[in-house]
Amino acid sequence: MSSFIEPRVLKGFRDYLPEAEIARSALADKLEATFRSFGFVPIDTPALEYAEILLGKGGGETDKQVYRFRDNGDRDVALRFDLTVPFARFMAEHCDELYLPFRRYHLGKVWRAENTQRGRYREFMQCDFDIVGTDSASADADIVLTIVSAMAALDVGPVRVRVNHRGLFNRFLAAQGVSDKLVSVLRTVDKLEKVGPEETRNLLAAETSMDLAGRVMDFITPEGSSAETLRKMISLCGNDDEEAAAAGKRLSDVFSIATSCGFGDSVNLDPGITRGLDYYTGIVFETTLLEMPGIGSVCSGGRYNELASLYTAKNLPGVGASIGLDRLLAALEALGRRQESDPVPLVLIANTESVSLAQLHGQAMELRKAGISSEVFPEPKKMSHQYSYAEKKGIPYALMPDGDSLARGVLPLKDLARRSTTEFGSLSSLVEFLKSVKMHG
Amino acid sequence: MSSFIEPRVLKGFRDYLPEAEIARSALADKLEATFRSFGFVPIDTPALEYAEILLGKGGGETDKQVYRFRDNGDRDVALRFDLTVPFARFMAEHCDELYLPFRRYHLGKVWRAENTQRGRYREFMQCDFDIVGTDSASADADIVLTIVSAMAALDVGPVRVRVNHRGLFNRFLAAQGVSDKLVSVLRTVDKLEKVGPEETRNLLAAETSMDLAGRVMDFITPEGSSAETLRKMISLCGNDDEEAAAAGKRLSDVFSIATSCGFGDSVNLDPGITRGLDYYTGIVFETTLLEMPGIGSVCSGGRYNELASLYTAKNLPGVGASIGLDRLLAALEALGRRQESDPVPLVLIANTESVSLAQLHGQAMELRKAGISSEVFPEPKKMSHQYSYAEKKGIPYALMPDGDSLARGVLPLKDLARRSTTEFGSLSSLVEFLKSVKMHG
Repeated sequence: MSSFIEPRVLKGFRDYLPEAEIARSALADKLEATFRSFGFVPIDTPALEYAEILLGKGGGETDKQVYRFRDNGDRDVALRFDLTVPFARFMAEHCDELYLPFRRYHLGKVWRAENTQRGRYREFMQCDFDIVGTDSASADADIVLTIVSAMAALDVGPVRVRVNHRGLFNRFLAAQGVSDKLVSVLRTVDKLEKVGPEETRNLLAAETSMDLAGRVMDFITPEGSSAETLRKMISLCGNDDEEAAAAGKRLSDVFSIATSCGFGDSVNLDPGITRGLDYYTGIVFETTLLEMPGIGSVCSGGRYNELASLYTAKNLPGVGASIGLDRLLAALEALGRRQESDPVPLVLIANTESVSLAQLHGQAMELRKAGISSEVFPEPKKMSHQYSYAEKKGIPYALMPDGDSLARGVLPLKDLARRSTTEFGSLSSLVEFLKSVKMHG
Repeated sequence: MSSFIEPRVLKGFRDYLPEAEIARSALADKLEATFRSFGFVPIDTPALEYAEILLGKGGGETDKQVYRFRDNGDRDVALRFDLTVPFARFMAEHCDELYLPFRRYHLGKVWRAENTQRGRYREFMQCDFDIVGTDSASADADIVLTIVSAMAALDVGPVRVRVNHRGLFNRFLAAQGVSDKLVSVLRTVDKLEKVGPEETRNLLAAETSMDLAGRVMDFITPEGSSAETLRKMISLCGNDDEEAAAAGKRLSDVFSIATSCGFGDSVNLDPGITRGLDYYTGIVFETTLLEMPGIGSVCSGGRYNELASLYTAKNLPGVGASIGLDRLLAALEALGRRQESDPVPLVLIANTESVSLAQLHGQAMELRKAGISSEVFPEPKKMSHQYSYAEKKGIPYALMPDGDSLARGVLPLKDLARRSTTEFGSLSSLVEFLKSVKMHG
């Protein structure tokens, strides 16, 4: 009868053990602090929604990447696969209860039945932030400033936010008389980083002509500075094009705001950034960690002018970005810059039979009241066993009250890494010491 | 063609707007801080698991409350309906990578296709904490102490953790010669609070006999103090019963630990607490907010001695509790003790055309660097419009730089509630003021 059910998770899913979960939540905390410092407020939406909401009408074709099923009430439902579509539905539904412009951030899980052979997960955390209800350089800049600030808070080394504007590309292709090729050219250029300039040129030539491919390659090659690059792009759009001029003005405004905030070096114009997605209409951007450019963009986004048009006639222009939390965590790990957080707990109260549980727990509670995390080892096992537990858990100190120390009125604290013990004459001196090590690492 | 998709969520699901989400996350932060102060570490598990894992074998019968479906790979999968079953699977799978005793907490969403007519949600947040790998009074007490500490951190007023021990009930029924009725009697007694003593007695009489119903009612009626109640219970088990004596000793140990931590008044023996679930084997408890007893227990749990027996032969005794986050949030709301958090943001930088966006954003960034959250209103709209935005969002102050104040080198800060403006001569004096209001409310 010993037929156990094999304890395992689904392919593409994973457990977070404490170390990983602590690192993830430390990362999330820092991002949230940055978002809030910019006035973004948090929201949440359901994991499960009507499939029609998530996938749009004409819902016959099942998107293979979507977890879609009929619920117990025979409703056609699906797990959210991103945070953008639910946000669009959210804005259409709650617009009148909110204030515009609405700045929100949303950290949440999404689910995609991806091909796991490419190292992708089927459940992962997304982190989006947007400003909706305004089409202004101020909002565009705020998203870019938030990205640079968030990366600085995470201590991921120097970053570059590479910005472009869809309007320029549109007008450039219009000037070449091939507006109809916009989406396919954008998608090909989007692959530049992955396949290199040679291959991009070949792909473009196959789609259009050798000649046009050359002109596109010229258009997407940056000059020495953002200002020079912008001048070249506008001239290639035809200098008298009003739409191109407006896009250029928007980019200049964003760059001058970034410069006045001290972020000039971190924000560049890169005409090779297009973002494959259809819905962007204004600025678009990607974020590169200069110490790890190979991992790709850790934060991407752009301006869209019709967030919720599937659900409402209301005009809701917006700009936003999405952080790839898993990619960022992996990068931090690779850079040896795991997000630090306080040891949990700071002190193990060792358990010896000579001291009552009531006393041990009383002492632990005193420490907690003074802001020091502590736990009582629950059984009077051998000291070597208790130390080894503390070591595995990453607890740096052990308080070891025993009959002798109690009689002498002292508190013996063992530094488990140094294997040295210090006796403290009072709880307050012990607390003072522990607070100082907590602050200074 | 204006056929929009109606923006709506599924029945039993809900969006969290910023105010609600901020309250929820403030609550979660306080709970997490308490858990960590006791040495609990966080974990996470997938939302979706094999149905076999979540529902056990003989999986033919579909539990109507479970969201269960076939995924794109035709796997029989389900959304987790609690955090206990995934934790059991987690412990069976990762036991060897972890240290025992393992203290974990887990905050996460769960899904149940409940009848929404009873005001229940189909998606809700659970919060569990457990200590696994030890059967000790120390661990039992730690769970109880954590509950009392968490409730104190949340400022929900006085609480009572009502504790009992399954062993006493077992032995009492054995002494009456009706051990076989254990589960049904436990479940009936569990309804005591809801249906009252009269009805409980009737139900018990129908299940057993009038005579036994009377003896059960006597057994579950508390005396003046926990110690007196315990003496009576042990005597009704037959004073020479070793198992009853051991259970009594365990309860006494828990009470004396609670007392030595200053929580004696908050932890009582209540022989009417049974918890309906089969798997408890030792102490069981419920938590009552004394200012709102009617809402029921806000934190319940107990000791189980076979956490992961479906998945492994390893013996994993444990003790744990589950906090009903939604119930607690509703209680806090009703008590007018919504968890406070800093306004997001503290300062709106008003937008007038006389000051450049670059300057406005530069000022906002200076404030952020000094630890003051701020946002720039993105467009130069009428001041009344910008004030009304700040009011709706709960932003208490507006910084209103204009040509005149810039020329005079002053920073005019408007207190939006008092409608008064103060001019600061420097950024540092402004920051000092804002930090003082932030600290003192």
